[in-house]
Amino acid sequence: MTTERYDRGWEKLMEVDGTGGAKVIESLKDISPDLGKFVIEFAFGDIYIREGLDLKQRQLITISSLTTLGGCEPQLTVHINAALNVGLSPKEIVEAILHCTPYAGFPRVLNATFVAKEVFQERGLTIATQQ
Amino acid sequence: MTTERYDRGWEKLMEVDGTGGAKVIESLKDISPDLGKFVIEFAFGDIYIREGLDLKQRQLITISSLTTLGGCEPQLTVHINAALNVGLSPKEIVEAILHCTPYAGFPRVLNATFVAKEVFQERGLTIATQQ
Amino acid sequence: MTTERYDRGWEKLMEVDGTGGAKVIESLKDISPDLGKFVIEFAFGDIYIREGLDLKQRQLITISSLTTLGGCEPQLTVHINAALNVGLSPKEIVEAILHCTPYAGFPRVLNATFVAKEVFQERGLTIATQQ
Amino acid sequence: MTTERYDRGWEKLMEVDGTGGAKVIESLKDISPDLGKFVIEFAFGDIYIREGLDLKQRQLITISSLTTLGGCEPQLTVHINAALNVGLSPKEIVEAILHCTPYAGFPRVLNATFVAKEVFQERGLTIATQQ
Amino acid sequence: MTTERYDRGWEKLMEVDGTGGAKVIESLKDISPDLGKFVIEFAFGDIYIREGLDLKQRQLITISSLTTLGGCEPQLTVHINAALNVGLSPKEIVEAILHCTPYAGFPRVLNATFVAKEVFQERGLTIATQQ
Amino acid sequence: MTTERYDRGWEKLMEVDGTGGAKVIESLKDISPDLGKFVIEFAFGDIYIREGLDLKQRQLITISSLTTLGGCEPQLTVHINAALNVGLSPKEIVEAILHCTPYAGFPRVLNATFVAKEVFQERGLTIATQQ
Repeated sequence: MTTERYDRGWEKLMEVDGTGGAKVIESLKDISPDLGKFVIEFAFGDIYIREGLDLKQRQLITISSLTTLGGCEPQLTVHINAALNVGLSPKEIVEAILHCTPYAGFPRVLNATFVAKEVFQERGLTIATQQ
Repeated sequence: MTTERYDRGWEKLMEVDGTGGAKVIESLKDISPDLGKFVIEFAFGDIYIREGLDLKQRQLITISSLTTLGGCEPQLTVHINAALNVGLSPKEIVEAILHCTPYAGFPRVLNATFVAKEVFQERGLTIATQQ
Repeated sequence: MTTERYDRGWEKLMEVDGTGGAKVIESLKDISPDLGKFVIEFAFGDIYIREGLDLKQRQLITISSLTTLGGCEPQLTVHINAALNVGLSPKEIVEAILHCTPYAGFPRVLNATFVAKEVFQERGLTIATQQ
Repeated sequence: MTTERYDRGWEKLMEVDGTGGAKVIESLKDISPDLGKFVIEFAFGDIYIREGLDLKQRQLITISSLTTLGGCEPQLTVHINAALNVGLSPKEIVEAILHCTPYAGFPRVLNATFVAKEVFQERGLTIATQQ
Repeated sequence: MTTERYDRGWEKLMEVDGTGGAKVIESLKDISPDLGKFVIEFAFGDIYIREGLDLKQRQLITISSLTTLGGCEPQLTVHINAALNVGLSPKEIVEAILHCTPYAGFPRVLNATFVAKEVFQERGLTIATQQ
Repeated sequence: MTTERYDRGWEKLMEVDGTGGAKVIESLKDISPDLGKFVIEFAFGDIYIREGLDLKQRQLITISSLTTLGGCEPQLTVHINAALNVGLSPKEIVEAILHCTPYAGFPRVLNATFVAKEVFQERGLTIATQQ
């Protein structure tokens, strides 16, 4: 049985993360299913669902937070895909990561940029090299 | 003597951070003036000056990065002021900080929110309590 | 109007954090009331409420996480009080912080220890110096 | 020649980490043998040996600290095995990691949970999916 | 009763940190005296005592680590004093902090620089403003 | 067209990082070429180029910062190679990493030490095991 909050969270997860998010939830089923439930209910059903910022803005903030944290390559993969899903361009994503340099330093930014590179390659996307 | 890069950085710093940024540079003069120069030349003259994201988007990213880093209360004070300067509303700023919760956790988000509260109070701003 | 989840979260918050937690929620009312709501609903109504670990174990884990994060002195104040509230002794709390040294390093452990010192002093508690 | 402190540390390392810990020490022999010595003497001979908290409590604290730090997957592998060695159940370990979510955020907790999943699989352990 | 390791650690602590270090140990006496003992025995009696790097090199490394960690202002105060004690010039200390910018970002470097400013002011030291 | 700052940065990058650094810049060409440009211009053209600390001292600081940050294994690979390039011995590098233990904790130090082990093996270097 699911709650209304779970259902709206799942719908939002599908809209934002798509299959990447669903795979994470699936992979949690036999180890920590409630962690998956909380990702859906809290991160998506409580937070992403909110008004006040649109999904493009939310993805810029998420990518900045994950870039800054470091060691979040799997989550960056999901959320760079999500950023594309909600309409950010590859160029905007790369620019958002680059913008973190003065705050989080080059290593964090390099690591996140290489995740973006992989995601774009998997989706057959290119980025104009002249920025 | 300043360079073109310094001059455009200073202009951008003034536009974004205003007097808050200028005070930081001033306070570095007798201890690490080149650090101030690099804030101007690199953070503003190289990064903030770029196209691809507008200043509102850049401030959302900066606030997310500083919230996530933690221990950056003085920089958050400057950049929450900057966010207001470039046209973000108090509500959008608070929402951007709140959006970091699933990634950076409650303590980082609480600390950043209380910085926002102080900044808004100093500027006589209120935020609608019904969100 | 509150939900069942909010109500059980509030009850758990009162049991664990007591007035320290309530003050945090109160201080959020005019800046980010929903952040306070999520502390109650998610941190307490979803997580603290769970079975599988008792409240003493949960406080040891919380204190370790906050010590390791760093820059969470206000949250450590609340949760060291909470640790006492749920029955951990001052000595166990100090020992839990000390145990983080090999993983989080001395600076994080020193900062957390001095928060404990303040909390114990405010509550008139002493810790046997012979260890 | 070893000291009393080294010997008691080694004995405690064997009790807690078992072969996983011994492999780490072994792998340090030709690069930084004294680092291995300090793991034994300080982390185990000085800290783990102490009274005031039992080994189950210490492993909960260690897992929380490593989860929160991030980027410590190899150390989490050793210490989740250690947690099992000292008598924590798979369910308690998963719950301890989950409890870090409000403080350290979902990405850190997801990464640690997937380490637990691998460790349990290697040891042929299952966790009841209904929590 | 103290051990040989404690004694050599104390001597090294006195040589490096001087009264600043002694005050930290003193302030731990009634809350976590063994934490103070481990600072002396491990950080100084085991690590600082070692050959292979001289004390100036060790202080550069310590300052870089504390700057990068963030939230370690009290420890930076002690170790910037220590850096002066072992013969690093104010200019070298400021330069070492500045060198961390590409890795740790501006906020961490700004915070550490302002600690250095306070330490130098307390000791009546100036730094040539032309770098 | 390149600037004087780019050219002096590139020259310094070649001197310090050598082919390892050049590969990073190359790998950024089709995803975030300006990030590569800023590594060259800012990290090397602005920072590494400076007087006040020699290249050996700068590499000790860089290694300490990367070790402490965590999750920077690719950057540590480049900069441990760089440390060897500018004349630090394997033993000094291992000692510098070890010195971070009291501040950054064992896990960060272990991870960095194993990067050093790989770099030394690739270059056919050994480290005297008697320390």
